[in-house]
Amino acid sequence: MSPKEFRSLTRRGEWTEGTGIVCRGYLQANLAVVPKDYAFEFFLFCHRNPRPCPVIDVTEPGDPHPKLVAPEADLRTDLPRYRVFQDGKVIAEPTDVKNYWRDDLVAFVIGCSYGFDWALRDTKIRFRFTGAYTTNIQCVPAGRFHGPMLVSCRLMKSSYDAVRAAQISSRHLLSHGPPVHIGDPSLIGIKALCYPDIFAPAPVPPQEPGEIAMYWGTGITPQTVALESNIPFMITHYPGHMLVTDRIAEELAVL
Amino acid sequence: MSPKEFRSLTRRGEWTEGTGIVCRGYLQANLAVVPKDYAFEFFLFCHRNPRPCPVIDVTEPGDPHPKLVAPEADLRTDLPRYRVFQDGKVIAEPTDVKNYWRDDLVAFVIGCSYGFDWALRDTKIRFRFTGAYTTNIQCVPAGRFHGPMLVSCRLMKSSYDAVRAAQISSRHLLSHGPPVHIGDPSLIGIKALCYPDIFAPAPVPPQEPGEIAMYWGTGITPQTVALESNIPFMITHYPGHMLVTDRIAEELAVL
Repeated sequence: MSPKEFRSLTRRGEWTEGTGIVCRGYLQANLAVVPKDYAFEFFLFCHRNPRPCPVIDVTEPGDPHPKLVAPEADLRTDLPRYRVFQDGKVIAEPTDVKNYWRDDLVAFVIGCSYGFDWALRDTKIRFRFTGAYTTNIQCVPAGRFHGPMLVSCRLMKSSYDAVRAAQISSRHLLSHGPPVHIGDPSLIGIKALCYPDIFAPAPVPPQEPGEIAMYWGTGITPQTVALESNIPFMITHYPGHMLVTDRIAEELAVL
Repeated sequence: MSPKEFRSLTRRGEWTEGTGIVCRGYLQANLAVVPKDYAFEFFLFCHRNPRPCPVIDVTEPGDPHPKLVAPEADLRTDLPRYRVFQDGKVIAEPTDVKNYWRDDLVAFVIGCSYGFDWALRDTKIRFRFTGAYTTNIQCVPAGRFHGPMLVSCRLMKSSYDAVRAAQISSRHLLSHGPPVHIGDPSLIGIKALCYPDIFAPAPVPPQEPGEIAMYWGTGITPQTVALESNIPFMITHYPGHMLVTDRIAEELAVL
């Protein structure tokens, strides 16, 4: 299915599930929408924290179309599920945000590690995704935005798989790029790999001998930042329920 | 000489010349300073035009210190020469901008191709720098900012040198990354390679047989954009007279 066809499904409300395995090879994206008054500071926050928040497109105020990566997409309807934040609380998790859209909203389309997962699979890297976690790594603050970095974790079967995963993900800078940590989860404040506190698509069997844990910044980070920073209004995607763009991840890879 | 020592020279007004060959291996940077009211749109302009305008640091309003790349530097005094733009005109080319600084100014520190020149020299690539030119390539506009892309040109001695230069510069994404054009200058609207219309550090001998012209985006682009877009106020560096940062170019290279 093409990204355009997939988005028309979500637009009609016929797909409200996660996007982990849809549209082979295409770049998927996190969403963070803030009022114009916060846009410069949030842009700065993303620029200072490129591992969790690699910006791939930014809209002009009020414009719901990400012109660089999916000009025909409508950010108000084309993601399967959203979160709406008000004054540091989640107030809704709807399947479209038409009723919340305003003329002063600026949308940040942020790369997603699903963008390099296809490349990992294509190169036969053996790994399993566990989920997303809060860490004790503090993001570099910017203006009114501050909070911890969130990461996703993949368990690599062997050292070979880990080295290849570091190489390949590093080419995909707009999909979070290289890992931010390797190994012991407690060193970055994660208590139990088996229990992702932020997002867990499925139960996580225990780590096996020889498996190497690798952690990448995740674009769910702005959601925790919205909570911690008491931002008056923000719209995001619901974890795992991404925008599927028209760009192939390989197109945007470096070297 | 360390970047800190070099900047103290410029701070005292004891160096007002170009920075092409100072502080081996250190990242140099273009400067573009705009009022806060223009900061988001200019950030967007840079993000949409990463070849001429790769952003390496952005200050908070009024702050003259680029905290990520040279926290001790003072952007008002530490470049050898500046340009001040008002209502689409150059009104001054001073050696410091203390008298022009305001509390609402946001500074964008933009990578410079001097950042990969050291890598080209270290790998024995044979080339000569000619200067900077206006092209007929239009930048992607953002808000009130629009204008043509400016490029710098290097003549490579052979195909081998050209291929290596493409590889090496591509690693230095924050120093403009890969070339935007190779070969015939007229295809991008350059009339005469021997007469750079924007910046010519020295007279340019004619292109020799076998030499291959390669063109990179240049951080002088915001200056032409300031003129074309009639921006009420902007401060930039004077071409070739850059900020020398504390970061080594190789530190920030990809792969």
